[in-house]
Amino acid sequence: MKAYILTIGDEILIGQVTDTNATYMADALNDEGYEILEHLSVADTRQGIRDGLDRALAVADVVLMTGGLGPTKDDITKKVLAEYVGTELTFHAPSWERLQRIFRSFGREATESHRVQCYLPATATVLTNERGTAPGMWLEFQGKIIISMPGVPYEMRYLVRQEVIPRLLARNTRADRQRSLTIRTAGAGESVIAEAIADFEDALPAHMSLAYLPDLGTVRLRLTIRGTDEAAMHTELQAQQVKFESIIGHLVYGYGKEDLALAIQRRMQERQLTLVTAESCTGGAIASMITAHPGSSGHFKGSVVAYANSVKNQQLGVPAGMIEKYGAVSKFVVEAMASGARQQLNADYAVATSGIAGPDGGTEEKPVGTIWLAVAGPHGVTSKLLRAGKDRKRNITYTVHQALNLLHQELRQAEA
Amino acid sequence: MKAYILTIGDEILIGQVTDTNATYMADALNDEGYEILEHLSVADTRQGIRDGLDRALAVADVVLMTGGLGPTKDDITKKVLAEYVGTELTFHAPSWERLQRIFRSFGREATESHRVQCYLPATATVLTNERGTAPGMWLEFQGKIIISMPGVPYEMRYLVRQEVIPRLLARNTRADRQRSLTIRTAGAGESVIAEAIADFEDALPAHMSLAYLPDLGTVRLRLTIRGTDEAAMHTELQAQQVKFESIIGHLVYGYGKEDLALAIQRRMQERQLTLVTAESCTGGAIASMITAHPGSSGHFKGSVVAYANSVKNQQLGVPAGMIEKYGAVSKFVVEAMASGARQQLNADYAVATSGIAGPDGGTEEKPVGTIWLAVAGPHGVTSKLLRAGKDRKRNITYTVHQALNLLHQELRQAEA
Repeated sequence: MKAYILTIGDEILIGQVTDTNATYMADALNDEGYEILEHLSVADTRQGIRDGLDRALAVADVVLMTGGLGPTKDDITKKVLAEYVGTELTFHAPSWERLQRIFRSFGREATESHRVQCYLPATATVLTNERGTAPGMWLEFQGKIIISMPGVPYEMRYLVRQEVIPRLLARNTRADRQRSLTIRTAGAGESVIAEAIADFEDALPAHMSLAYLPDLGTVRLRLTIRGTDEAAMHTELQAQQVKFESIIGHLVYGYGKEDLALAIQRRMQERQLTLVTAESCTGGAIASMITAHPGSSGHFKGSVVAYANSVKNQQLGVPAGMIEKYGAVSKFVVEAMASGARQQLNADYAVATSGIAGPDGGTEEKPVGTIWLAVAGPHGVTSKLLRAGKDRKRNITYTVHQALNLLHQELRQAEA
Repeated sequence: MKAYILTIGDEILIGQVTDTNATYMADALNDEGYEILEHLSVADTRQGIRDGLDRALAVADVVLMTGGLGPTKDDITKKVLAEYVGTELTFHAPSWERLQRIFRSFGREATESHRVQCYLPATATVLTNERGTAPGMWLEFQGKIIISMPGVPYEMRYLVRQEVIPRLLARNTRADRQRSLTIRTAGAGESVIAEAIADFEDALPAHMSLAYLPDLGTVRLRLTIRGTDEAAMHTELQAQQVKFESIIGHLVYGYGKEDLALAIQRRMQERQLTLVTAESCTGGAIASMITAHPGSSGHFKGSVVAYANSVKNQQLGVPAGMIEKYGAVSKFVVEAMASGARQQLNADYAVATSGIAGPDGGTEEKPVGTIWLAVAGPHGVTSKLLRAGKDRKRNITYTVHQALNLLHQELRQAEA
C-alpha cells in the first residue's frame, strides 16, 4: 500500500521550523512496510491544501497530514478537508465534553476557541488526542484514507502510535511489503566502502537495493527488500547481511537505530565495564552523546571536560611540564589525560581528546583540525592522530565519532 | 519570483533522516524575499526526480534541489537532469583538475568514482563546491532556473550562501525585499509574551509581521518587514525593536543567531570572568553547548560531568553523607556541586545540574522530570527546582536552557 506525507504550515514553508513531523510519520509507516511515495509541504491556504490533497490522492492509497488544526483563524485544514470530501462541519459533542472535563480537572474552563475545535467533518472518525485539544480525523474518500492530525509534534506522535498505525494494520492494508536493514559502519569513507562492496552491490537481485548514508566518519548502509512473503524476505535479507559482513564486517558496529554510543553501552554493560571521558576539544560532546541514552548511568561514571590546562593538570594529573614541553595537543598529553581520567575517576576505560577544533588557534606545525585521541583500558593506552578540516562543528562531531569508534575497536579486541 | 524546494533521497522519504536542507534553503530564500511555494521530497529514482521537476516547474520560476550527486550507484540526479533538459553528460575538465589538486595536497589520489562526479550536463553552469567533491549545477530551462546541489548539508549550505543566493540576486529576480530581526528571549512562555505584547502586535503596520518560535524554555520572536527601500526598512525595524524592548526587554538575551551560550560568552569575556560546570543529568550538554562556539576557551575552563555519586564526592567535594541523606537530586547536593566546581576548578562562576532525566528512575517523591539547578558566583549560590516532563531528550535540552538562563540572569544582576 502506498502512503503519502502531507504537512501544512507557512512556518515550514519559509524555513522557520524543520519538518520533523514528516520524518516521524515516514519512519513509522516505513517500519510497518508501507511504501512512502513523497513528502509534500504546502501553505496553510485553501488552495495549498487542495493542491496537496490532489497530488497525494492521485498516487497514494493513504495520506497522513499534519497542521492547521489549531484554534486560531489561520488554521483552516478542517474546513478545507470537509469541503474536499463533500461533507459539512458538525459539532462533535463527545470531544467537547472531554475538553470541558480536562479543563475542569485543572481548575480552568474551556474557552470558545476550544469549542470551535470540536466542529469536525461529519463523515470523519474522530481520533482522540490524549495529548492536546485538537482531535485527529480519519476520513474515507473514493476508496482512499485521509488522516489529519495536529502539527504539534508531541500530539502527532501520540496519534500516529496509538491510533493511526494500529488502525491501518487492523485494515491489513499492506500488499507489497518492504523491509529494511540498516548496517552501521565507522572507520572508512563512503567511496572506500563502495569500492570494497562493488561486486556485492552488482549481484543484488532487482527487488533489493542498497543506499549509503555517510555522516562524518560513519556510514550507514540501508539494505532494502520488497516482496509479499515476510518470512522469505527476512531469510533473504539475513543471507545478504552475512555476505555483506564477510566483506567489511570489521567496520560494522551496530544495526538499525543503534549509534556508536549505544553499541558501546551494550557491550560494556554486558561485561559490567565502566567508562569515563576526559575531553578538551570535544568540550563534553562525547559525554553528552553517551548520556543521551536511557540507562547510560549503568556504565558511564562521568567526565572531566578539561578546556583549561589547569584543569588538565589538577583534575587529571597531567604534569604541567609535559603540557609546556609538548603542547596540550600532543600524543603525550592526550595519553596522560586518558590514563589520568581512568585513574582519578576509577573506571575500566577512559576516552580522551585534545585538538584544535577551529576555526582559529592553529599554528604551522599544528594547523586547525589537528586532533589527538586516546583510549586507556586494562591493557594499556592507544592513541591516534586525526587531520580534520577547518569547520568547528564538523570537527567536534567527527572527533566524537572517531573517539567512540576507537573505544569500540578496543572493546571488540579485548573480547576477541 | 516564485521558488520551489525539491529534495531527493530515499533516506528522507523513509524517515531515516530529517530534511534540514529544505529548511536551510527555504530560510535563505525567504530572507531575500522569495516566495516559496512548496517543499517536495521524492525518491532517488528516474521517475521520482522527473515527477518532482514536473511539479516544481509547473508553478515556480526557480527550483532549488539537493541530493543524489554522490559518487555511488544510487546517485542518479545528474543523469536524470541532463535527460530532462535535453542535454548530455560531458566531462568537465576543470572540476577534475580541481579534485586531483585537492587530493594530492592531502597526499592521496582521486579515484575513478571521483572522476565520474566530473561528468556534468553540457548546458550547466558549474557551481564550484569548495566543501566537497560533487559540484553544484545551475541550469536554464524553458525560461526557468534549476539549481542542483549535493545533499551533504555542509556542502549545500556553502553553495547556497556563496553561489546560489548571490547569482539569484545578481539576476535581480526579486521585487519586494524582506528583512527580519530575530529577538531571543528566555524565562517566559509563548502565551505570557503574547499577552504582554498584545498592543504592540496589534499596532504593527500591515507590511510588518511578528512570528513566535518557542523552544523548550526559550522563545524567539521574528519581526519581519517587507518593502523596497533597504535603508527605510532598517530604520523602521529598529524603531519597532525599541518599542518591543520597552515592554519585555528584561526577557531578551540576544539577537539573530546569538544563543544563550554566546550571550553569556560575550558578557563574561567583556568582564574577564571564568566559568565551569558540574553536570549530572545534563551529562555534558551544557559544556558542549558552550564549547560549540569559537573563542569559548576565553571564559570556559571546563566541567566535571558527575554522573556517578563517587564523582560528585571525589571530584566536586560533595559530602557522601549529604548525598545519602538528601539524595543526589536535591537542593543541598546541587548547591554543593556548584560550590565545589567553582572552588575545585577555580572559576568565578559555576553552573550545576542534578535531576531525573527519564524515562525511568523516578520515585513518588521525585518523579521523572524533577531537576535541580544551581549557580555559584562571587555573591553566593542560587538554586532552582524544575518540574519537567517524561521525555529524556526534551528534559536535557530544557534543563540546559534553564541553567544557562539562570546564569545569564545572575550575570545581568551582578552588572546592574
